Amino acid sequence: MNDTFLKACRGEKTEYTPVWMMRQAGRYMPEYQKVRGNISFLDLCKTPELCVEVTLQPVDRFDMDAAILFSDILIPMEAMGAKLEFHEGRGPIFEETIRDKKTVDALAVPDPQESMGFVLETIRLLRHVLKVPLIGFSGAPFTCATYLIEGGTSKTFWETKKMMFMQPDLFCSLMEKITLCTLSYLRAQAEAGAQALMIFDSWAGILAPCDFEEFVLPCVKRIITGLKETKLPIIYFANNGATLIDLSVRSGADVIGIDWRINIRDAIRRVGRKAIQGNLDPFALMLPQDKLRERIRHLLHAAQEANGYIFNLGHGVHQFTPPDQVKYAVDAVHDLSGK
Amino acid sequence: MNDTFLKACRGEKTEYTPVWMMRQAGRYMPEYQKVRGNISFLDLCKTPELCVEVTLQPVDRFDMDAAILFSDILIPMEAMGAKLEFHEGRGPIFEETIRDKKTVDALAVPDPQESMGFVLETIRLLRHVLKVPLIGFSGAPFTCATYLIEGGTSKTFWETKKMMFMQPDLFCSLMEKITLCTLSYLRAQAEAGAQALMIFDSWAGILAPCDFEEFVLPCVKRIITGLKETKLPIIYFANNGATLIDLSVRSGADVIGIDWRINIRDAIRRVGRKAIQGNLDPFALMLPQDKLRERIRHLLHAAQEANGYIFNLGHGVHQFTPPDQVKYAVDAVHDLSGK
Repeated sequence: MNDTFLKACRGEKTEYTPVWMMRQAGRYMPEYQKVRGNISFLDLCKTPELCVEVTLQPVDRFDMDAAILFSDILIPMEAMGAKLEFHEGRGPIFEETIRDKKTVDALAVPDPQESMGFVLETIRLLRHVLKVPLIGFSGAPFTCATYLIEGGTSKTFWETKKMMFMQPDLFCSLMEKITLCTLSYLRAQAEAGAQALMIFDSWAGILAPCDFEEFVLPCVKRIITGLKETKLPIIYFANNGATLIDLSVRSGADVIGIDWRINIRDAIRRVGRKAIQGNLDPFALMLPQDKLRERIRHLLHAAQEANGYIFNLGHGVHQFTPPDQVKYAVDAVHDLSGK
Repeated sequence: MNDTFLKACRGEKTEYTPVWMMRQAGRYMPEYQKVRGNISFLDLCKTPELCVEVTLQPVDRFDMDAAILFSDILIPMEAMGAKLEFHEGRGPIFEETIRDKKTVDALAVPDPQESMGFVLETIRLLRHVLKVPLIGFSGAPFTCATYLIEGGTSKTFWETKKMMFMQPDLFCSLMEKITLCTLSYLRAQAEAGAQALMIFDSWAGILAPCDFEEFVLPCVKRIITGLKETKLPIIYFANNGATLIDLSVRSGADVIGIDWRINIRDAIRRVGRKAIQGNLDPFALMLPQDKLRERIRHLLHAAQEANGYIFNLGHGVHQFTPPDQVKYAVDAVHDLSGK
């Protein structure tokens, strides 16, 4: 078993820099498209055998140092009772938005074994075949809340902030429910065999630091504290969160994910003794290979100052990225870091 | 003439904190909606008498300390030859995208007097009636380029970054043309009577600092250097640009605009001796008035450390903001800062 990734998460010295990429399994891969040709996205998420296949595709093809469970951050929201649909090109849609006490109260805190058994089964199956560590994951409460409140993704997140500012008690009661659901969901993933857990706060970056500190951080902290007994490394990633790094560190996470908007030296200074993951602009995979290599070299050089570094993009692989460029980047990281 | 705003721009001591708000003239005001009821957005931008009326509406109603010319950042792109349309709810659309040498070469560097005389006329008319300083503005070259390349706004800016990374020479030739157009446009605004000039880099925040430094900063710097002879204060605002502040300072701007994602103390430390403008989350205008007042009080207290502070939002006023909340915020700033 290749445990380079897990060592880096714990801040231990590694022989080379481990690499994986957010959304490494996905639409940019023809073999993924082939699987998706016969099944909807949501059905795919609920079919363990296919989730296993899709999870393995990039690991095998690109020699990634970690696998991430193929699933979606909104699966637990559906388990809470929100009716979820995915429309091609429009992303996730919740027909009924959650904006008042009645709809918040109607949400359940589900038993993951009962309502999300397919995810746990995927994890168990993956552990039988994987030779690299398996990362389980969830959305962070704030990010999940935005989808429920807005009814999908949003350009401005007006409804979310309106609720947060005008009805803070209602907003916090929604956050509380999602927090409880997320904690038990991640615990179940750990029991099923996940070897690291990542919390994606995709929309945390829309918040002022003071609001992040008041409304979001306590929930993330509560989840991470509740996961300590699993002894698994926890990665917290606040997308577009350069100004939230100092606060993110206080979440108790072992690894801080960063996007591409911040110079990694600056990020390392802010995370202190924590390990760090990310930083390459996903679109920089379009650079000519000599320039891409140069950029990776700079990144790896600067990352030597970190107390544990995991190479990753600053966001998911874009759907039009040529797989050969992904392969080139993974090989360059391995090659330049001495594998 | 109330010159509090201009003094703050220059870092001089002011009797109280000047305030204006980005997009202070706009859809959230019934009197603006009334004007728009009879005319399209683009036609409104081209009718000086109505632009004057709309520019004055928030100044009169809310006692703002500065007026900003009512116009759109894409007006000069149309003058360059790109066919611009505004569709209700979809924002600006350029039917023909600019993605190759032929379409870049076809763009003109227009004479502002000839092609954008209506803007200059608006400025002249406004100066006859205004009792507060008038801010002229333009989009920054990068932001304008994204609209031309994407054909409108974008979720990912894939085409923009693809051109930047894969065809840097083509990208830079487009940036060069927009830079020349922007410089002569802002010079013409100064000659017509604008008393400060603001450069909006609405999409700079999608860039990694190294790419901002290589592709964007030199163009902004060139514009600002070219405007020095006007002796007007220049404000540069890179939206979502917390990690770009150190570089933005090097643009030569007198005032650095900041959004709401950064703690103002942190921002002040980074801008050094420059004046600073912005920081309140526009959606925080939805806070109950006692909490809004508290937030403004904190902001003003922290801003005492700045070498010149202009109260503003971190982005434009949202269209569903009650005008009374805007009024309350302006009064609170004046009241709390000793007007």
